[in-house]
Amino acid sequence: MRAVILAAGKGSRLRAFFKKPKPLIPLLGLPLIVRNILALKECGISDCIIITGCYADEIRDYLGSGRQLGVNITYLHNSDWKLGNGVSASTFQELYSPKEKYILMMADHVFELDLLKSVIEAAKDMDEEELLLASDSRLEKVFDLDECTKIMATGNRAEILGKDLKNFNAVDCGLFVDTGALQKALSQSIAEGAYTLTAAVNKLAEQGKVKLHFVDHYWVDVDDPASYKYGETMLLRSLVPPKDGFISRLINRKFSLRITKLLSSTKITPNQITVISFLVAIASAISFAFLNPILGGLLAQFSSILDGVDGEIARLKYLQSKYGEIFDSLLDRYADYFIVLGMSYAWYLTSENPLAVLLISAAALMGLPLSMLFKEKYKTVTGKPYLPEINDGKLRYLPANRDGRLFLIMLGGILNLIPVTLIILAVVTHLQTLSRLKIARKII
Amino acid sequence: MRAVILAAGKGSRLRAFFKKPKPLIPLLGLPLIVRNILALKECGISDCIIITGCYADEIRDYLGSGRQLGVNITYLHNSDWKLGNGVSASTFQELYSPKEKYILMMADHVFELDLLKSVIEAAKDMDEEELLLASDSRLEKVFDLDECTKIMATGNRAEILGKDLKNFNAVDCGLFVDTGALQKALSQSIAEGAYTLTAAVNKLAEQGKVKLHFVDHYWVDVDDPASYKYGETMLLRSLVPPKDGFISRLINRKFSLRITKLLSSTKITPNQITVISFLVAIASAISFAFLNPILGGLLAQFSSILDGVDGEIARLKYLQSKYGEIFDSLLDRYADYFIVLGMSYAWYLTSENPLAVLLISAAALMGLPLSMLFKEKYKTVTGKPYLPEINDGKLRYLPANRDGRLFLIMLGGILNLIPVTLIILAVVTHLQTLSRLKIARKII
Repeated sequence: MRAVILAAGKGSRLRAFFKKPKPLIPLLGLPLIVRNILALKECGISDCIIITGCYADEIRDYLGSGRQLGVNITYLHNSDWKLGNGVSASTFQELYSPKEKYILMMADHVFELDLLKSVIEAAKDMDEEELLLASDSRLEKVFDLDECTKIMATGNRAEILGKDLKNFNAVDCGLFVDTGALQKALSQSIAEGAYTLTAAVNKLAEQGKVKLHFVDHYWVDVDDPASYKYGETMLLRSLVPPKDGFISRLINRKFSLRITKLLSSTKITPNQITVISFLVAIASAISFAFLNPILGGLLAQFSSILDGVDGEIARLKYLQSKYGEIFDSLLDRYADYFIVLGMSYAWYLTSENPLAVLLISAAALMGLPLSMLFKEKYKTVTGKPYLPEINDGKLRYLPANRDGRLFLIMLGGILNLIPVTLIILAVVTHLQTLSRLKIARKII
Repeated sequence: MRAVILAAGKGSRLRAFFKKPKPLIPLLGLPLIVRNILALKECGISDCIIITGCYADEIRDYLGSGRQLGVNITYLHNSDWKLGNGVSASTFQELYSPKEKYILMMADHVFELDLLKSVIEAAKDMDEEELLLASDSRLEKVFDLDECTKIMATGNRAEILGKDLKNFNAVDCGLFVDTGALQKALSQSIAEGAYTLTAAVNKLAEQGKVKLHFVDHYWVDVDDPASYKYGETMLLRSLVPPKDGFISRLINRKFSLRITKLLSSTKITPNQITVISFLVAIASAISFAFLNPILGGLLAQFSSILDGVDGEIARLKYLQSKYGEIFDSLLDRYADYFIVLGMSYAWYLTSENPLAVLLISAAALMGLPLSMLFKEKYKTVTGKPYLPEINDGKLRYLPANRDGRLFLIMLGGILNLIPVTLIILAVVTHLQTLSRLKIARKII
């Protein structure tokens, strides 16, 4: 499937703030159009046709052939861009192959990746001569409803569209999959002197040919400073993975998302953040070993927060790598080990019972990798992820996952309760593993 | 796809030894026909038609509806079974649906599971009116060539088949996939007074309709005590998985396969063996802790051998379970932990430097789960297994996998070199992990 991206408009309302053509305005480290191109690539679409108009040269100069992004970009120019976005969309006619199914999207809309994925999935089930339109019926969740193109829908068919519609039950997200019907309708409506995309879509709607795909992810048309800010917030929120533990959700993400926002405009890579998080953990271990448990505990928690940032930056900027994932999880285990070893050493220095130190430290160390071991094994054996938030039941409040363990260590450090913390760590990790074995027996 | 299993013959040569109809003779814990039914089920085929003749009642009484095996069995009886196996095979005609593709196999042949899988895979690419015949061109590897039905093949087409063929380059494994052609040929040849399967297959061979699938796994027609013994050896050998480490391959499997052979006829389950292996590991840990390192070391190695048996029994008797796999790998980690902890405790009792005991024991404990952690993570992230024997390169001789680690522990116990063993364990496990991270970076 190919994608056609409309990038012909002027976008004057944001120009004043960024001094750039709107498609090139950076949002959390990626220009709007680049984010859409990379999202398409993530969905397996690497042939893009960009329709330029105003600022054609700037956009071409910036994106080039697309090789740097790992995609192929073809440019089409619409010198009549001022007439309306329907004229821009119809420019694609010269490259269109009969019956080709393609995506049509706006360069300046921001979508959650899962929204795009769901549209592509829905496009598998389309009739010929049909237009699929992503639409949002969760009106209370739509940003700046006034500015949206409204839709009156019956079932999953659009009856009529328009910006000033009085009666409507959905809005247009600016994302289409066309099988040729739209191109025909565009030719007709342009011939009749109606130059907007909406005019052509309305022609199809009259014939019952506009199928709606109702989204349940977020999107926004970035148009002004308020929608720009909303886009940032929405994307940041989408970075929290469903596998998150409750400490991570309640505390860590509040900080990590802020750090991610700050770092997104820099060139720092996820693997570099992984290494920094590891070094902070080492600093925590050393602080414990030098009998500064308060600093040790705080650094452990800071390392835990940074441990979320690498993944967030990777997802945010499409920098995920398989190696990065393996590297991160192994380094996390070492980080855990060193922190607990630092605590054990500190305890040893002040204890008169080295055997207790040996046995309890061993029990704590042994427990550290078990959560990961179980989850990974569960996934390789069953093919499904083990989701603590769902599968663990009440057990999910046991601070035995990494976020919980490091939070315990912070508390233990601040309160200078190292032996107790090690005992609790040992108990919760082993208890979790034994309980999970029981759970697995039931749910497999 | 349905499977037709011929179980009509008398099989007199083995009757003297087992006092049972041949299909019901147990081989490594499963009657021959049950092994074939479970192998078919493993390949997704759960509808079996069993053609009985001699001993029809015994076979029906034993297998019933097949519910206990998790399959549906339909019986067809051939009262003229003495005439020849072609008559038995043609009995299926009354249930055959036009153009149906089905497997035809002999109840008393033993196949490696992968052989059956490869035939079913090959059957996807068959023309209508074609017969697919599993055949073995590795004549030097065929058991009792004299007794086999020989084939003269050109390319993958059979020209002629016969037991007394002078010129031949393959033999018939007794496993077919028919699309109807065979049933027609059987009717013709029976009408002409030729009652064997070979006669009908030869009719098709003359028309170039017998496509050969050349196998590269083992099989045997169990006919007499020698072939029975060969079947046992062949199946046991097939239980060694490709992921085995070199200590396991060189030493452990030599013992574990013997234990598996002994236990196969009992009702012991794989999970019970997992627990026994764990208890032996606990006994090893206690022996170390009570300063009997020789016994500790030997028990550790024995536990390592038993750790192979659960999987062997599971694969041999089709008792694999997803839960069993998770349970086994978690219990193995605990077994490792306890043995090393037992060693650490022993060292602590005799050492004057508890700090060295603490730090080195910690390093060894930390290293124990890393190999599994890496491999599981690698698999969940890349979708492919990490195969130490291939991916590790020269690193595979590092005794850092479980078989190697427990072998080191045995040596360390026998030689009473506990501190040195713990140091070596720590070094090899961490070295392996760091090297694998380097390898992963290259191969992902």
